[in-house]
Amino acid sequence: MDSPQQRQAYAGRIVLLGFGCIGQGVLPLLLRHIALRPTQLVILAADAEGSEQAVQAGIPHRVAALTASNYRRLLAPLLDPGDFLLNLSVDVSSVALLELCRERGALYLDACIEPWAGGYVDRHLPAAQRSNYALREAALALRRSDEPGPTAVLNHGANPGLVSHLVKMALLELAAGNGLAQPAPTSRRQWAQLARRLGVRVIHIAERDWQVDQQRKVPDEFVNTWSVPGFVSEALQPAELGWGSHERHFPADGHRHHYGSRAAIYLERPGAATRVRSWTPLAGPQHAFLITHGESISIADYLTLGAGDAPEYRPSVLYAYRPCDDTVLSLDELAGRNWQLQPRRRLLRDGLVSGVDELGVLLMGHAGGAYWYGSRLSVEQARALCPANSPTSLQVTVAVAAGVVWAMRNPQRGVVEPDELPFTEILDFCRPYLGEVVGVYSDWTPLQDRCRLFDEDLDADDPWQFKNFRVV
Amino acid sequence: MDSPQQRQAYAGRIVLLGFGCIGQGVLPLLLRHIALRPTQLVILAADAEGSEQAVQAGIPHRVAALTASNYRRLLAPLLDPGDFLLNLSVDVSSVALLELCRERGALYLDACIEPWAGGYVDRHLPAAQRSNYALREAALALRRSDEPGPTAVLNHGANPGLVSHLVKMALLELAAGNGLAQPAPTSRRQWAQLARRLGVRVIHIAERDWQVDQQRKVPDEFVNTWSVPGFVSEALQPAELGWGSHERHFPADGHRHHYGSRAAIYLERPGAATRVRSWTPLAGPQHAFLITHGESISIADYLTLGAGDAPEYRPSVLYAYRPCDDTVLSLDELAGRNWQLQPRRRLLRDGLVSGVDELGVLLMGHAGGAYWYGSRLSVEQARALCPANSPTSLQVTVAVAAGVVWAMRNPQRGVVEPDELPFTEILDFCRPYLGEVVGVYSDWTPLQDRCRLFDEDLDADDPWQFKNFRVV
Repeated sequence: MDSPQQRQAYAGRIVLLGFGCIGQGVLPLLLRHIALRPTQLVILAADAEGSEQAVQAGIPHRVAALTASNYRRLLAPLLDPGDFLLNLSVDVSSVALLELCRERGALYLDACIEPWAGGYVDRHLPAAQRSNYALREAALALRRSDEPGPTAVLNHGANPGLVSHLVKMALLELAAGNGLAQPAPTSRRQWAQLARRLGVRVIHIAERDWQVDQQRKVPDEFVNTWSVPGFVSEALQPAELGWGSHERHFPADGHRHHYGSRAAIYLERPGAATRVRSWTPLAGPQHAFLITHGESISIADYLTLGAGDAPEYRPSVLYAYRPCDDTVLSLDELAGRNWQLQPRRRLLRDGLVSGVDELGVLLMGHAGGAYWYGSRLSVEQARALCPANSPTSLQVTVAVAAGVVWAMRNPQRGVVEPDELPFTEILDFCRPYLGEVVGVYSDWTPLQDRCRLFDEDLDADDPWQFKNFRVV
Repeated sequence: MDSPQQRQAYAGRIVLLGFGCIGQGVLPLLLRHIALRPTQLVILAADAEGSEQAVQAGIPHRVAALTASNYRRLLAPLLDPGDFLLNLSVDVSSVALLELCRERGALYLDACIEPWAGGYVDRHLPAAQRSNYALREAALALRRSDEPGPTAVLNHGANPGLVSHLVKMALLELAAGNGLAQPAPTSRRQWAQLARRLGVRVIHIAERDWQVDQQRKVPDEFVNTWSVPGFVSEALQPAELGWGSHERHFPADGHRHHYGSRAAIYLERPGAATRVRSWTPLAGPQHAFLITHGESISIADYLTLGAGDAPEYRPSVLYAYRPCDDTVLSLDELAGRNWQLQPRRRLLRDGLVSGVDELGVLLMGHAGGAYWYGSRLSVEQARALCPANSPTSLQVTVAVAAGVVWAMRNPQRGVVEPDELPFTEILDFCRPYLGEVVGVYSDWTPLQDRCRLFDEDLDADDPWQFKNFRVV
């Protein structure tokens, strides 16, 4: 990977907005896969973190915190037609940036649709407006059918992002395993038909982070393997999930949205306080956190047949995240503090001593039961593959880089979601960076070993009901 | 402490049943505080753990797992009138042992009322019969008013045990703080009247274990600072709590017992899956586990005025345990395994490198708000005070030793609970081993900082309702 034969040609400027764990990790990938002079790049970040690395590479680094009142003044001069705004920041409105890029004719990519600072936890906003559903609808509203405009790739990190492509690969693997030899679907409708034909009822983005740092979490500290503010803000959003057509027990604390795709619902509680049963090959059954993520909505929407609140077919889709042990303890402490963030924060990256990030998609309800397809990337592998990366960051940054390259090659596609990108092309780019990519069948269901000590309120007739997954 | 001036004289035999963490830790205390030749002791344990220590001390150590069919044959020959059965085992029926001791005229003490193996998790038994309420009633049924019989001290470890005495100290401190100068109560009724007069509505046994081992928990391992089987079995019992007279929201999953003291209720779920908001001076607000314990019932019962399901006065009492970090992670993994114990188990004792066990009682609802009174004992302190002990074990073993000495001095008191022992005498014995003993006021209530992100179903009129403490 060190001397890729074909680097993407690019003559414009890349504005790298945000230079935390993901920004720092993507930089070497951009320089490796795109023919860039350092002066084609400019970094704009809310603090000086990582600025030494940038300066060493000859890349201008400016410190400025973007707000609703200054972002146009700071960004517009940097964005000419064909330039690229790569948004890896937190607390900056993706929709505002999208609009600006369309005006300027600039390309855009982010790994998460963000609101302005505080938008995730503003108690004056109803929970519905703090949801990813609302953010996605606001971003998609910028689409114009008559004139797509400059390409803007939404939500293209590991998840959301990479996992949309893993879902398609998993569907093809399942089809092959079921003797459904057929050409790969070429449209949204065909993918949904394949998922329905296979009997897929539920999809978890099923992640187990096994990484261990040399230094344990200490009291009053929140630690995390990619971004403390990034993770905490999504963990405090309402829990959200794509709501499948097979679901027959609407949650007591659940709410529908009354506009837009109708593909997802939210719960009146933070994901950080919401556990679901899930499964990964290395962990086996585990209790994960139901953290809201863009892919829960976009994948569910992409695979929908029919429309409205009662479509013909839609799988339930949710992100079942079991962070590393010290982050679980950080969440436990955060809950005790009634969601007031700890004063100390630490990114686990340079001190990591072992462990893999096991990130994949778990497709359930089909003839094979459950099928997990994904990446197992170790600390050692990630460091060997790309400097300034951990397993967690590399799974994100490689998908970011793949999306950037794709956008450069396809500069007039307008606002697109990961599900609309060519999955083979993206996966071909990413695969060398994903460690072991495996598919594993399991007979696990959320009804397995239940009611061992106490009666539980279950739907024994259909293992794949959300109520069976949920931990109460 | 190494050469106590007055050792308790004792001519009988002590049968030490069980030689795990607590058995091993109490042995040096018995030898220090009781005038014993090694041959007056005999150790009977289900495995050879710690047998080297016993042999070195010249104490016979026999390996035998007691069951309902062999316990009489194995124990009866060892128990003559005036001998002492010190039961620190798991999986041996306390009631069976109690009966045997009464027949043999032997003294008895345990630190937990246990059923025979499997009794805590026998799915064929209704949850009510797996409760500590049921076990306590069965033990108390052996009391005879006409003839007390040989002393049998139930539940006299740290908690249950020591904490009953800490509650009395805390009540006296609160009384002094309120200018209620008065002689200490001398009867159960007077203690309950004092608690009512002070306005105590809720008592938590509020513990935070801050201990850290040099080796982190590894996958498929359950670790714990006193006993893996001991803790896991109580964690899988139904959650139980003393049910106060001020409570006005009976839990949807709650059940009353229809016989006995009526002092407690249970929830149709394991304590390991039941969190409550609580507070300790070093932790501040924290989410603890509502683990069933004898003291939740006996203290609530002891402080009751009136009778039946609607007494004039009773505080709610529960054990709010926040184990050490690696045990929290062990519980998380255990939950994911649907309560099937991990194959690897490890006692954290010899590898501990830092931390205190912060164990106290938190009295709430009085004019001072909340008042925590208890022990902070560090790893270094515990090791310096007594060999073969950690903070957790020493808080237990010193109370066990105090109870043994008291029973030897008072050999004909029949079946007694900690609340019936003389608290000053017991605390005088224990205090040198408890590290820092502190009382701390707090304005914390479980309503503090609530509803910060989402609406929550609370009783805003009375902070001290159980529904406000419970984490849902």
